[in-house]
Amino acid sequence: MESNFTERLRNAQSACDSMVCVGLDPDIAKLPEALRQKYATPEAAILAFNSAIIQATAPYACAYKLNAAFYENLGSGGFSTLAATIDLIPNHALCIVDAKRGDIGNTARSYASSIFDLLGADGCTVAPYMGFDAVQPFLEYRDRATFVLVRTSNPSSDELQSLIVNGKPLYEHVASLAAAWGEKSSGSVGFVVGATKPHELQRLRDQHPTIPFLIPGVGAQGGSVKAAARAATSKGLVLVNSSRSILYASPNKDFDQMAAKATRKLRDALNQTNH
Amino acid sequence: MESNFTERLRNAQSACDSMVCVGLDPDIAKLPEALRQKYATPEAAILAFNSAIIQATAPYACAYKLNAAFYENLGSGGFSTLAATIDLIPNHALCIVDAKRGDIGNTARSYASSIFDLLGADGCTVAPYMGFDAVQPFLEYRDRATFVLVRTSNPSSDELQSLIVNGKPLYEHVASLAAAWGEKSSGSVGFVVGATKPHELQRLRDQHPTIPFLIPGVGAQGGSVKAAARAATSKGLVLVNSSRSILYASPNKDFDQMAAKATRKLRDALNQTNH
Repeated sequence: MESNFTERLRNAQSACDSMVCVGLDPDIAKLPEALRQKYATPEAAILAFNSAIIQATAPYACAYKLNAAFYENLGSGGFSTLAATIDLIPNHALCIVDAKRGDIGNTARSYASSIFDLLGADGCTVAPYMGFDAVQPFLEYRDRATFVLVRTSNPSSDELQSLIVNGKPLYEHVASLAAAWGEKSSGSVGFVVGATKPHELQRLRDQHPTIPFLIPGVGAQGGSVKAAARAATSKGLVLVNSSRSILYASPNKDFDQMAAKATRKLRDALNQTNH
Repeated sequence: MESNFTERLRNAQSACDSMVCVGLDPDIAKLPEALRQKYATPEAAILAFNSAIIQATAPYACAYKLNAAFYENLGSGGFSTLAATIDLIPNHALCIVDAKRGDIGNTARSYASSIFDLLGADGCTVAPYMGFDAVQPFLEYRDRATFVLVRTSNPSSDELQSLIVNGKPLYEHVASLAAAWGEKSSGSVGFVVGATKPHELQRLRDQHPTIPFLIPGVGAQGGSVKAAARAATSKGLVLVNSSRSILYASPNKDFDQMAAKATRKLRDALNQTNH
């Protein structure tokens, strides 16, 4: 039986025929000049920016991912801006809070409550290094998805993730562990797998045919759109995230329309490969 | 030559003859009833609680560690409460923000700025799974300490950390990598090593004689005070953290005096073993 999250993701993807997730990672220094001058505070400018991006891209996006770092660096107004942005996401789309949290049990419970109860996110990301008890409090929210970092898209990701354990790279062990955590908790586990390592992405999909993948790394990071699309199957859904190449598609007043165009283009490229 | 952070830590420890770090991880449900009733908001009650704890324990604590989770779950008032608590820490003591962050370069930069620029922390904790580029933005603040999770104190920590890579457990590789990150960036790297694994703690100290260790897990988690004390040498400083067994030493009005007593007791137990 499909988990509640997978079913909701499937519906969200059907609604706009898209597996694109728009990354709402606003950097005040990169916002259009006109917008920055119009608002008195960075928080207000960012909220207006996010609102315009969401409205313009909504026809082509099944989800929005908000990286907590880009709100925390606003200080005390950050959490409100994050929460207010989440309120702007249309009903058909899902909301992922990308916070990569990982801490001991009672602390992880606090983080999970912040993300799922206070912010009402549909999914979040977590770090695997501390093991099951650091992830379990997230998995207890069974109708939300907990995406475990398996294979990340950054240049240094090999340092730990490619270390060989019993003849296999560490990230394959992490994938198997994470899948087992999902089963033993009856939670909705997903994997974060970067598009910058196409062969590994395919191999992980072969090994884990039904687990939802959140795939960063296309766009500014140069990952493979084709590999991301190929990881999407009838049973194994993917969310393909792009942040900077959508948000900053234009530095001018037409930023929202150009963001919509970039989102549509990514959607079509993914669908073309996949169909 | 000692790093600026090590020098400051040495001074902080001399000032109160203590290697105790008090973990300010306030859980509103565990605060004394009288205090909860006196204040209109959880934020105000927590700030009053933290203030009393800091004032009472300051003679016996060289540092305070604030776990971000216990502030984030307050919502929009959380960051202000965290910042206001940091402002209450006396000059002689250091402030560690325990956030265990880890993300790709441009995102890690945002987190580092939030912790070091906005909050003005002396140190923070980070997760190692993504490799060097996720840690580098923190290490660029050379006078602050970046404590990398090496061997954590929680029950599930073996799942990944004890996997054998080339005949050695993964956490030993992480320790060597983290030490190398510190060297190549000229940053101040530290290790988080739980007191719940005494032999491993000792082995890590033998392998890395000069790196500062942040040691959680004594107190509520049952870690060894003796092992923590033995890891402290003239060259290799340690910060021994206790949270719950200090904060909740008494559920009554005398909570601050009992917290002071618990801090002093831990300080003396550490010093007795060490001297």
